[in-house]
Amino acid sequence: MQERTHICGELNEMHIGETVILQGWVKRRRDLGELIFVDLRDRSGYVQIVFNGDENREAHALAEKIRSEYVIEVTGTVMKRDAENVNEKISTGTIEINVTDITILNKAKGLPFMIEDEQEINEDVRLKYRYLDLRRQKMADTMHMRYRTTKLIRDILDEEAFMEIETPILTKSTPEGARDYLVPSRVHGGSFYALPQSPQLFKQLLMVSGFERYYQIARCFRDEDLRADRQPEFTQVDIEASFMGKEAMLSMMEKMMIQLVKTLKGADVQAPFPRLTYHEAMERFGSDKPDLRFGMELKNVSELVKDSSFKVFSGTVERGDVVKGICVKGIGPDNSRKDLDNLSAFAEIYGAKGLAWLKVEDDGELKGPIAKFFNDEKSKALIDIFDASTDDVLLFVADKRKVANDVLGNLRNKFAKELKLFDPKDFNFLWVTEFPLLSYDEEMGRYMAEHHPFTRPVAADEALLTESPEKVRAEAYDLVLNGYELGGGSQRIYERDLQEKMFSALGFTDEEAKSQFGFLLDAFEYGTPPHGGIALGLDRLVMILAERTNLRDTIAFPKTASANCLLTNAPSGVSDAQLDELKLAVKDQKPADS
Amino acid sequence: MQERTHICGELNEMHIGETVILQGWVKRRRDLGELIFVDLRDRSGYVQIVFNGDENREAHALAEKIRSEYVIEVTGTVMKRDAENVNEKISTGTIEINVTDITILNKAKGLPFMIEDEQEINEDVRLKYRYLDLRRQKMADTMHMRYRTTKLIRDILDEEAFMEIETPILTKSTPEGARDYLVPSRVHGGSFYALPQSPQLFKQLLMVSGFERYYQIARCFRDEDLRADRQPEFTQVDIEASFMGKEAMLSMMEKMMIQLVKTLKGADVQAPFPRLTYHEAMERFGSDKPDLRFGMELKNVSELVKDSSFKVFSGTVERGDVVKGICVKGIGPDNSRKDLDNLSAFAEIYGAKGLAWLKVEDDGELKGPIAKFFNDEKSKALIDIFDASTDDVLLFVADKRKVANDVLGNLRNKFAKELKLFDPKDFNFLWVTEFPLLSYDEEMGRYMAEHHPFTRPVAADEALLTESPEKVRAEAYDLVLNGYELGGGSQRIYERDLQEKMFSALGFTDEEAKSQFGFLLDAFEYGTPPHGGIALGLDRLVMILAERTNLRDTIAFPKTASANCLLTNAPSGVSDAQLDELKLAVKDQKPADS
Repeated sequence: MQERTHICGELNEMHIGETVILQGWVKRRRDLGELIFVDLRDRSGYVQIVFNGDENREAHALAEKIRSEYVIEVTGTVMKRDAENVNEKISTGTIEINVTDITILNKAKGLPFMIEDEQEINEDVRLKYRYLDLRRQKMADTMHMRYRTTKLIRDILDEEAFMEIETPILTKSTPEGARDYLVPSRVHGGSFYALPQSPQLFKQLLMVSGFERYYQIARCFRDEDLRADRQPEFTQVDIEASFMGKEAMLSMMEKMMIQLVKTLKGADVQAPFPRLTYHEAMERFGSDKPDLRFGMELKNVSELVKDSSFKVFSGTVERGDVVKGICVKGIGPDNSRKDLDNLSAFAEIYGAKGLAWLKVEDDGELKGPIAKFFNDEKSKALIDIFDASTDDVLLFVADKRKVANDVLGNLRNKFAKELKLFDPKDFNFLWVTEFPLLSYDEEMGRYMAEHHPFTRPVAADEALLTESPEKVRAEAYDLVLNGYELGGGSQRIYERDLQEKMFSALGFTDEEAKSQFGFLLDAFEYGTPPHGGIALGLDRLVMILAERTNLRDTIAFPKTASANCLLTNAPSGVSDAQLDELKLAVKDQKPADS
Repeated sequence: MQERTHICGELNEMHIGETVILQGWVKRRRDLGELIFVDLRDRSGYVQIVFNGDENREAHALAEKIRSEYVIEVTGTVMKRDAENVNEKISTGTIEINVTDITILNKAKGLPFMIEDEQEINEDVRLKYRYLDLRRQKMADTMHMRYRTTKLIRDILDEEAFMEIETPILTKSTPEGARDYLVPSRVHGGSFYALPQSPQLFKQLLMVSGFERYYQIARCFRDEDLRADRQPEFTQVDIEASFMGKEAMLSMMEKMMIQLVKTLKGADVQAPFPRLTYHEAMERFGSDKPDLRFGMELKNVSELVKDSSFKVFSGTVERGDVVKGICVKGIGPDNSRKDLDNLSAFAEIYGAKGLAWLKVEDDGELKGPIAKFFNDEKSKALIDIFDASTDDVLLFVADKRKVANDVLGNLRNKFAKELKLFDPKDFNFLWVTEFPLLSYDEEMGRYMAEHHPFTRPVAADEALLTESPEKVRAEAYDLVLNGYELGGGSQRIYERDLQEKMFSALGFTDEEAKSQFGFLLDAFEYGTPPHGGIALGLDRLVMILAERTNLRDTIAFPKTASANCLLTNAPSGVSDAQLDELKLAVKDQKPADS
C-alpha cells in the first residue's frame, strides 16, 4: 500500500493532468470490453476511473477481476471527460482517472444487500451487518451529523467557559428513578455497582466543588422495557452551572440551539423561544411537548354544552369532568360519516370512551349525529369558539380532563401529519415550564418526583411541600422541538433542610434518605452554591437534525427492542468460572446462548 | 440571587470605580473590628473584599457572621489598594472591593480539612470528601488540564478529518485479554453483557464501514486486581485509520504530541521522535519504556568476563546466560561498601540472585569484593566499555537475559531519580517498535497475544506464524514519554485467512474462533481496507502534563485500590427484588453493606 495523494471527492478540473494515487471501494463497475469504468468510493465521495485495455493491458486485466466493494488502490492521470459524459450530479463529474496501475488490497464476496440508500432492507439484517449498513450514504451522513452536532456543542460550551468533566460509569445503585443496570463486584462478592441513569449526583457534587460550569456528553443507562424510541444506553448532553439562574440558563441554551440549526441546517430561529406553562400546554395542546408549527388548539366547551340535551356532554360536565374539542380544517368532504365514526377507535387507545364529531356545512350549519342537540345559537357559538368555516370538522371528547387532553393532543398531531400542516424543514422550539414537582403513584402508595428528587420547588410553593405536595410547581423546564422533548432541566435544591423535606415528601424515612443520599446531604452543608442544569437527549436531537425517524439510525451500534446486539450477539452466556469469581449463580433459566 | 457582573479573577485596575456584583466562596476572613477583609473565591481566582463598619453597618454586621467556605453574593465598588497593601502574588492584588451589600447564599460548617494545596491529607479522607478535595487549587488545575488536553486532542483530530463515533458500553464478553466486568441481562435472564476493555472490535468494524478516520475519548473497563496506577474504569484516546500506514500514523501522532506539550506546557519538542526496537530497548535500557532523558546504558560484558576466575560470572556465561552492567557516575564517595552490598536486596525484588559492584578509584583502579578477579587489562577494558571515570560505580547482574535487563533497567531508573539526572520539565518522547507478536504462557499452556489477537505480524515474519510463533514480530508501536508508556497501537490484520492463522496460533479451534469472533471474520470478507490505530491512556497523559504522581489525582471521582468509591459507598448491596429480576442468587458471601 502506498500513501494516497488525494481523496476521491476532492478531485475536479483543477487536477487535470496530475498523477494521483487513490484508494477506496468499488462502488460500481461497467465492463465495455476494452474500456472498464469503475466508480471508486472513499469517505469523501466517488470518482470515475477508467481502465483502457489498449493502453494498460495489465491494469485492464486486473480490472476484469474486481467486483463490487473490492478495496483497491489505483495510480492514474486526471483527465477531462468528454462533454457528453459529464455527470452533473456529482462534484467529480467533469473528470475521470485514466488508470495506469491497480492493486487489489482486499476482496469482497457477494453482499447480503446492496450499498444503496434507496433499498428497503429488513432492520434485523441491517443490524446484523451493521458494518455494511453504515457504508450506505444516508447512514454515513447521519453519523457525520452526530459528530458535527457533538463537536459544535463542545465548541459552544467551551466558549461559555464550561468544562467537560468525566463522571464514573461504575457507580452506586439508587432506588429512585428507572431500573438500574447492575454490575457485580468480584472484589466485594455479593455487592454491585450500578451503571448511571444520568450523572445527576456527580454533576451536583461538582457544583459543590466549585467548578461552576460543567458539561459532559455522557453515556447513560436504563434497564427499562424498550419502546421503539428507547435504547438501554443513550447519550445525553449534560450541563450544570452554579450562580446561573433559570433565565440565564434558558437564554444560553437558546443561543446554543440557534447556532446548531444555523450551522448544521442553515435555518434561522429567533430568541427568545416561546414559553408555555405545563398547565397551559396541556390545556391548549393536550401535550407537555406540543408541536407549535401548527395551531388546531384544544377548546374547552364545557360551559357551552353543560345544559345540552346531549346527555353525554351535560352529564360529563355535571360530574366535574370536561368537554373539549379541536377543529380540523377542511377535511369534511374527504371524510365520510363512517370515517369520522372510526376515529373513536383512535380515541379509545388513549383511554376515552368515544369521540363525537360535527361537520360544518356550506350554509354554516352543523351536521352529524349529535347536530340535533345544538340549536342555532349554540351551533353558532361552537363555530365561533373554533373559528370554524365550511368543510371543517369539529371533534369532541367528553371525559376526565387528562383523558380529554391526551386524546385531542394525539388527534391534533395525527391530523397535522396527515394534512401536512407543517414544513418539515422548520425548527420550532419552545420551553415548557412549571411542571408539577410530584405526582401520586397509586401503585407505590406514595408521591414520586416527576423529574427527580433534586428538583427545586417554585419558591412561592415551598410551604405546600408538606401539606399539598401535588400542588407544588417545580423550577423545571423542558426544551421542546417540533413536538419532541429534546431534554429538560431544573434549578436544584442546595439546602440540606429543603432536600430533607423533599425526601420526606417522597416517603423516605430519615434513615433511608441518609443511607441512599447521605453524601449529598452532607455535601450541602459545606458551602453549596445555588445551581441548576439541563440535559438534552443527543440521540433525539441528531434524529431531528439528520431528518431520520428512528433513534436507532442515529447510533452506530444500537440494540434491538429486546436489548440485543444482533452484530456481536450480546448479551450471551458466560463461563461458570466467571460466575464463580463473582459469587453468583443463575437461577431458573438457561442462558439465551453461550 | 442576582446575575453576577464579573468573575473574581478578571478584576483589575481597569475596573476601578465600577460597581460589581460577585458570587463565590469565603476563602479567608480577617476581622479587624470596623474593617473586615475577606478573600472571595470563585472558579477564576480570588479578590479581596472589604466590609467597612463605618460606611455600611448592615453589610458589616452580616460579614461578622460569615465563616470559611460560606457562599456569598456581594455588591460593591472596585477601589485601588494603598501601595503598602498591594499583593503582587495575585492578579487582583492591586484592587479591592468596598462592599455595600451582602447576601449569604449558603452556609458552611467546619470542614474536615482546609481548602489549601499545601496540606497533606490522608487520601481516604480526600476521597470521602472528594467534593471538597476538588476545591483545592491543585486539584481544580488538574481537572482543568484534563479538560484542555481532551479538548485540544479533539480539535487536532478534527483538523485531521477524524470523526468521533460512540461505541457501545454494553457489549459482548470475550475470553481474550483481561477480566471483563459483566452486566446481567434482565430481559435475557442468565445472559450477560460485558463492559468493553477497549472499543477494539467496534473501531475495526467502523473501518470496514468505510469511515476511514475514527476516534473516541472512550471509557474502558478492566476487572483486574488494582495496583497503585490502575483504575477499574479508565479513559483512552482511541484512534483508528484506514489507508494510513504505520509511518503516516506515527508522524500524525508526533504532530499531536508536539502541539499538546507546546500549547499546554510551552515546551518545544522536535519530530521525528527517536525509535528503538523492543529488542534494542530491552538490551540497552532494560525496559520496553525506557526513559531517554539520561544515559546510563546497560552494557553486555559477557564476552569480557567469560574466562574470569570469578566463577559466578564465567559460570553464567557458560550456561548461556549473560553478565550485564551499568555505570553510575560519581556515587563512589557517597556509598559505602555496605550501601552497595545492600543493593542486592533491590536486585532480588526483580528476581536476581545478587548484584556485584566495582568502584573506580582515583588512580583508575577498580576496588570492591570482586576487583581481585580482574587483572589490569580486564579492568581497563571494563572501564572502557562503560566509559567510566573516578568515583563511578559499576553494577553487575549475572543472570538470565530477561532478569539481568529487568534488574539493571530498574536500577537505572532508581539512580536517575535519586541523582536527579533529568530535568522534570523535559518531554522526552520515543517509539518502541517490533514487539514480539506472541509469548508463551506456561500457565495457560499456549501462546498469548502480547498486544491483542488483531495485531498484524511484520510481513517478513508471517511465514513463521505456524512454526515459530515466538519469533514473529508485530507491526506494533508503543509511544513512550519520560519512561511512561503513554499508549500503543498497531497495524491490524484485515484478511480472514491471516486472522484465522492468528487464532490458530493462539490455540483457538475453528469453532471457538467462530463463536467468539465470527462477526469480525465475516466482516473481513466484505471489503475490509488495510487499517491500523493507536490508543493513548488519557489518565497517564494528564498525570504527566499536570505534573502529578498519582493517576487518581487526574480523575474527578476515582476508586480506591480495592475498587471502592469512598464518596458514594459503591459497590453496595442490592435488594432481593433486584436480584430476582435478574434471575441471580449470591453464593457464599454476605454483601459488603446494604
